[in-house]
Amino acid sequence: MTTMTEPMPSLEQVVTKIESVKVAKSLTWAELAEKIGQSPVWVAAALTGQCSMSDDDCAAVKEVLELTDADCKVLQGYPYRGSLTQTIPSDPFVYRFYEIMQVYGMAMKEVAQEEFGDGIMSAIDFSIDVDREPDPKGDRVKITFSGKFLPYKKF
Amino acid sequence: MTTMTEPMPSLEQVVTKIESVKVAKSLTWAELAEKIGQSPVWVAAALTGQCSMSDDDCAAVKEVLELTDADCKVLQGYPYRGSLTQTIPSDPFVYRFYEIMQVYGMAMKEVAQEEFGDGIMSAIDFSIDVDREPDPKGDRVKITFSGKFLPYKKF
Amino acid sequence: MTTMTEPMPSLEQVVTKIESVKVAKSLTWAELAEKIGQSPVWVAAALTGQCSMSDDDCAAVKEVLELTDADCKVLQGYPYRGSLTQTIPSDPFVYRFYEIMQVYGMAMKEVAQEEFGDGIMSAIDFSIDVDREPDPKGDRVKITFSGKFLPYKKF
Amino acid sequence: MTTMTEPMPSLEQVVTKIESVKVAKSLTWAELAEKIGQSPVWVAAALTGQCSMSDDDCAAVKEVLELTDADCKVLQGYPYRGSLTQTIPSDPFVYRFYEIMQVYGMAMKEVAQEEFGDGIMSAIDFSIDVDREPDPKGDRVKITFSGKFLPYKKF
Amino acid sequence: MTTMTEPMPSLEQVVTKIESVKVAKSLTWAELAEKIGQSPVWVAAALTGQCSMSDDDCAAVKEVLELTDADCKVLQGYPYRGSLTQTIPSDPFVYRFYEIMQVYGMAMKEVAQEEFGDGIMSAIDFSIDVDREPDPKGDRVKITFSGKFLPYKKF
Amino acid sequence: MTTMTEPMPSLEQVVTKIESVKVAKSLTWAELAEKIGQSPVWVAAALTGQCSMSDDDCAAVKEVLELTDADCKVLQGYPYRGSLTQTIPSDPFVYRFYEIMQVYGMAMKEVAQEEFGDGIMSAIDFSIDVDREPDPKGDRVKITFSGKFLPYKKF
Amino acid sequence: MTTMTEPMPSLEQVVTKIESVKVAKSLTWAELAEKIGQSPVWVAAALTGQCSMSDDDCAAVKEVLELTDADCKVLQGYPYRGSLTQTIPSDPFVYRFYEIMQVYGMAMKEVAQEEFGDGIMSAIDFSIDVDREPDPKGDRVKITFSGKFLPYKKF
Amino acid sequence: MTTMTEPMPSLEQVVTKIESVKVAKSLTWAELAEKIGQSPVWVAAALTGQCSMSDDDCAAVKEVLELTDADCKVLQGYPYRGSLTQTIPSDPFVYRFYEIMQVYGMAMKEVAQEEFGDGIMSAIDFSIDVDREPDPKGDRVKITFSGKFLPYKKF
Amino acid sequence: MTTMTEPMPSLEQVVTKIESVKVAKSLTWAELAEKIGQSPVWVAAALTGQCSMSDDDCAAVKEVLELTDADCKVLQGYPYRGSLTQTIPSDPFVYRFYEIMQVYGMAMKEVAQEEFGDGIMSAIDFSIDVDREPDPKGDRVKITFSGKFLPYKKF
Amino acid sequence: MTTMTEPMPSLEQVVTKIESVKVAKSLTWAELAEKIGQSPVWVAAALTGQCSMSDDDCAAVKEVLELTDADCKVLQGYPYRGSLTQTIPSDPFVYRFYEIMQVYGMAMKEVAQEEFGDGIMSAIDFSIDVDREPDPKGDRVKITFSGKFLPYKKF
Repeated sequence: MTTMTEPMPSLEQVVTKIESVKVAKSLTWAELAEKIGQSPVWVAAALTGQCSMSDDDCAAVKEVLELTDADCKVLQGYPYRGSLTQTIPSDPFVYRFYEIMQVYGMAMKEVAQEEFGDGIMSAIDFSIDVDREPDPKGDRVKITFSGKFLPYKKF
Repeated sequence: MTTMTEPMPSLEQVVTKIESVKVAKSLTWAELAEKIGQSPVWVAAALTGQCSMSDDDCAAVKEVLELTDADCKVLQGYPYRGSLTQTIPSDPFVYRFYEIMQVYGMAMKEVAQEEFGDGIMSAIDFSIDVDREPDPKGDRVKITFSGKFLPYKKF
Repeated sequence: MTTMTEPMPSLEQVVTKIESVKVAKSLTWAELAEKIGQSPVWVAAALTGQCSMSDDDCAAVKEVLELTDADCKVLQGYPYRGSLTQTIPSDPFVYRFYEIMQVYGMAMKEVAQEEFGDGIMSAIDFSIDVDREPDPKGDRVKITFSGKFLPYKKF
Repeated sequence: MTTMTEPMPSLEQVVTKIESVKVAKSLTWAELAEKIGQSPVWVAAALTGQCSMSDDDCAAVKEVLELTDADCKVLQGYPYRGSLTQTIPSDPFVYRFYEIMQVYGMAMKEVAQEEFGDGIMSAIDFSIDVDREPDPKGDRVKITFSGKFLPYKKF
Repeated sequence: MTTMTEPMPSLEQVVTKIESVKVAKSLTWAELAEKIGQSPVWVAAALTGQCSMSDDDCAAVKEVLELTDADCKVLQGYPYRGSLTQTIPSDPFVYRFYEIMQVYGMAMKEVAQEEFGDGIMSAIDFSIDVDREPDPKGDRVKITFSGKFLPYKKF
Repeated sequence: MTTMTEPMPSLEQVVTKIESVKVAKSLTWAELAEKIGQSPVWVAAALTGQCSMSDDDCAAVKEVLELTDADCKVLQGYPYRGSLTQTIPSDPFVYRFYEIMQVYGMAMKEVAQEEFGDGIMSAIDFSIDVDREPDPKGDRVKITFSGKFLPYKKF
Repeated sequence: MTTMTEPMPSLEQVVTKIESVKVAKSLTWAELAEKIGQSPVWVAAALTGQCSMSDDDCAAVKEVLELTDADCKVLQGYPYRGSLTQTIPSDPFVYRFYEIMQVYGMAMKEVAQEEFGDGIMSAIDFSIDVDREPDPKGDRVKITFSGKFLPYKKF
Repeated sequence: MTTMTEPMPSLEQVVTKIESVKVAKSLTWAELAEKIGQSPVWVAAALTGQCSMSDDDCAAVKEVLELTDADCKVLQGYPYRGSLTQTIPSDPFVYRFYEIMQVYGMAMKEVAQEEFGDGIMSAIDFSIDVDREPDPKGDRVKITFSGKFLPYKKF
Repeated sequence: MTTMTEPMPSLEQVVTKIESVKVAKSLTWAELAEKIGQSPVWVAAALTGQCSMSDDDCAAVKEVLELTDADCKVLQGYPYRGSLTQTIPSDPFVYRFYEIMQVYGMAMKEVAQEEFGDGIMSAIDFSIDVDREPDPKGDRVKITFSGKFLPYKKF
Repeated sequence: MTTMTEPMPSLEQVVTKIESVKVAKSLTWAELAEKIGQSPVWVAAALTGQCSMSDDDCAAVKEVLELTDADCKVLQGYPYRGSLTQTIPSDPFVYRFYEIMQVYGMAMKEVAQEEFGDGIMSAIDFSIDVDREPDPKGDRVKITFSGKFLPYKKF
């Protein structure tokens, strides 16, 4: 049994370790994003197991996050995506996206399809930006989705 | 019984009528939005029964949408919001918002709260823009959410 | 009230009418598909309210299906897609697709992503063929999905 | 207590071990499929606990996957099938199959039953192929299902 | 409009009519089954819209059930199967089948697969008999399922 | 603390142990059933924690299954029944019972109640047989339920 | 068409009519129960479509409830039982039974099975009494269930 | 770290221990109830973590159940009530209460409110008795609920 | 048939009529509450079918709401309570109560039970006030619940 | 590996520890709230992982709750909120809030929006008080919600 390959950590174990190191060292997603050269949302998603990282992405944070070679290999897999364990999320920050979909989802469909025709906004060829919008009445959170328009194909 | 007040139409009946007239006359949300002076998403939401319209909002489209006084009164009520009958919407356009919340919801929370502290993006003091982002590889749908940051109050 | 625009039929009413005429005249999807010049699955989907038809598509079947101009206008809208009222469909033919997803979904993901990298098979830029595969032990149903591979974009 | 039979590993433990060894040694499903002489989807399903392997199937990968005799015995059981813990899967790759069933499920039923009569495509006497379909506009994922047609029996 | 095809009744309307005539005339499933020459369970399923009838099946009960030609045509369609509107049925007679599946489902799987190997009992090439089993302690309901064994195909 | 009673194993632990020994020794339910003198389905149910065994039942398999006295005591408890963790089971063998209930549940109710009057087939005073039905076109699985008819009591 | 059997009312229509007459005439379940000679709970259940009435039961209330012969025939059918449209009922009176099952269900099982052995309280050979229990601190509702003990049969 | 307070057991651990000792020593709820001086159902509920015990309640069973001071402290907390992990319980004994609520819940509401007016039977100021009702045709389980009637308050 | 009792309106019809008249005449809940002499929340609940009104309550608003005697009789019934058709309400105003229960429900339980002992706040002997709380930073909604403390009874 | 950062405890571990120490030392939320200088509900929420604490908040209870620096760091994170694992909570204390929302949710919406216009009560800029309301007929639990009114923004 001595020649058996050493077990790899699970993705969950790697993510737990990353979160622990991040809190212990007071690292920010912004700092990690700068090291990797991608946007903070993508980096936060990748390091919590929602996206697949490249060799270079891992290398850029390997030391600061104290990752092993095995950890990096795991972060380069193609994860089963979906970060929520509830169908309708209870956390107020995340729930507001569900609320927006409920209240404005059909209106966004109406307006986008009036402009583009029958099709969808891709959630794969897709990016997100989260910004601060200064406002004297209280700063605003500005979230921008940009997804390729995919027209329905007839067949 | 002759002096009984005439029954008001239900919100559902008014919305069905608006959708019917809109299709029959080939009106667009963009045209209706220009008349009302609000953005297309808000106007599409209001005319499908998800927002409350003012007197002036109704007056601006009363003739073109062939609305009666009673119809207008109904559109000025405070509706029970939520345009979807499914917990997880089956329509691909709308579902992608659910998918985005599943895949990136926690990452957006991480990044926004790192920037703003503990709190949420309001979905009430809130606006949406839907735009075309020209791109040689295929135009993109750009959706911008802007909501006031609401910090959690301690008590 | 005499100058009011005549109400449009609902999509549900148009679909019910099409199904009724189709049964009454013993029309087949194959015949209707040939007239329209698209594949039978797409035509069956479109005429049951799951796809958006063009002017020409409608014109090709207008007479045989006894459609009015208003019916055609409705069939050219961008429908809320999703033909099932149950989360897990009870009908055995349809359920088998759910079963295949349950039993082989992860294996298909493993094999496809090993070949293509991290991404998905598009269900929008997508087509389906249903064919008979003659077999001495009993003919087989052959269903072919073809969807553009969409690689995950980093951002 | 010294003569007690040694506990067998659970199927879950065997699968976790296989996944770990596969990642550690950078093995592919294609390579494992070639060794076993079955198609990659079936092999990926079997080695993740969704199908029952024969003695020969196990023998072909026993060394490379570092399986014990007990592991092999477990892989030859008849598993409780179903690889997903969510009713509607959150992972975008897998979800697209759910979406296809929602949008095109009834149309496939219509077309297949028009051709074959009342019955179903078997998901037991059944196979899957996943292929690359080269395309100048972007390669396509081609997935082919082939299942015996089973006519409903009257009784 | 005078040349328009007359609308067909819906399957639901035909079933409601059959149930009404059956009650009004105090017909039994046994009598109807004898006329059609199939078993009572199949006939009860077919006349409540769960199976597809042949021309001859319909002809045998057309007069007694006061069916029109259109009704018969509808009964020969391939229905969306599933007679329950609840995921877990509330009716005690029907619920007991759910209970049996919960308590003994895995045991039946264990015993059948030990005997037959990996596979299933078909629910398509399948029949049901409901019989009275006289017993001095109280007669018993005997229900017999007979389904072709379908072995899992490797691919 | 030395005089504390030794903790009993949980039912889950005993079942896991039985399954492990059964696989390790290649025992069959048929063999175990013969030792106990009950039918294989009941024995498979009892040894997987769905039925309550008597002293004699346990004694008959104690040695071959390497059960301790404590294990036996646990198997004689009155378990919380229900062997499935999903409302609608994903495993194809087990799901077919759900499908049969969906498609034929109401028809079985109609036919049985026509014969017996208002009441149910007991699932408590109840037995199951699983048999092989030889058939030149492929052997069949024959499953027989026999439950006492329980008429509804008026009060 | 003149010789067609007149359609029977649906059970739902008969129940709605009974409820309407009962309110209009200020009848009580107690009065109706006395006429029929069964207990009020059973009579309330039967007249709201949850139990099957005999000829005599119907005759006893036919005039006061203004029932037709057809209504009576419908009330003598064997209904699909289950009076609630919600899995967990929202009405506080009915919900308390769900709460009791949640909090004390397992304790009742423990105590009853300790007394009777492995088995259940029948809900078919079963009766309910609802009584007033005078109490100086506020009268109490006393609900008594009496169901035959059904021991599990071994097979 | 030596002065840190020792961790308390969780309620789940205490309940598991009690169940283990009870089985090992063949104690009955009736015996434990006599020691505590409360009814068996309440005692079974309390010792499985559904009710809050007093100091004296714990003292009465401390020795026989081998409870520590910490165990007793935990049993005196105010637990999160609800002993079932399924919305609709699969166990037949417990399910019958769900069935009774489904079939007779509305009838009990009708009869009780006719007697008491608008209000509910309390499930807090509430007791349960489980008794054997001897019957020549088979003994019956008699379960009596007694809850204070709480009239709805107008405000 | 001429002597048949006239059908009563359903509660739903009465509520729809009240809502219609209220909108048509621009009545407020405050005005209606003053006429009836109860608080606005109770009156809004009662006139939307969630509470049972007395003769005097109805008489006070009979004329202004154009109620018939039959309408009044219906409003005096004991309704099936629960005003929402969704398990988790989509409307943002109503959802916030669900959110409060999710985030603070356990904390309120902890604090209330620390003060009062094991028991609950009654939702039957209960009242609600909705008030405006002027605040220079934006007025606040103040909602006060007052429910009798009900201690758990031991039995 | 010796220079690796020590793993942080999970929030769940910290909360379990706090609950354990609180029970062991018989601390009350009221005492802890006084130390921190916030209200008991907020403190109970924060120390059970539903709110984010400041440095000072933690410092005030660090010694009495035996918290480490790492524990404090974890309590200052921004938690995923939602303290319940059930969609509809089974615990009677917590369920009553669900019941209030079901029965009075729409009435509260009606009354509050009549007073304030279209908008919501914030659950973020929000506080809760739990008080004892002495009453000769039995003391009452008084729960006061105060949330900023947020008017819907048009856009």
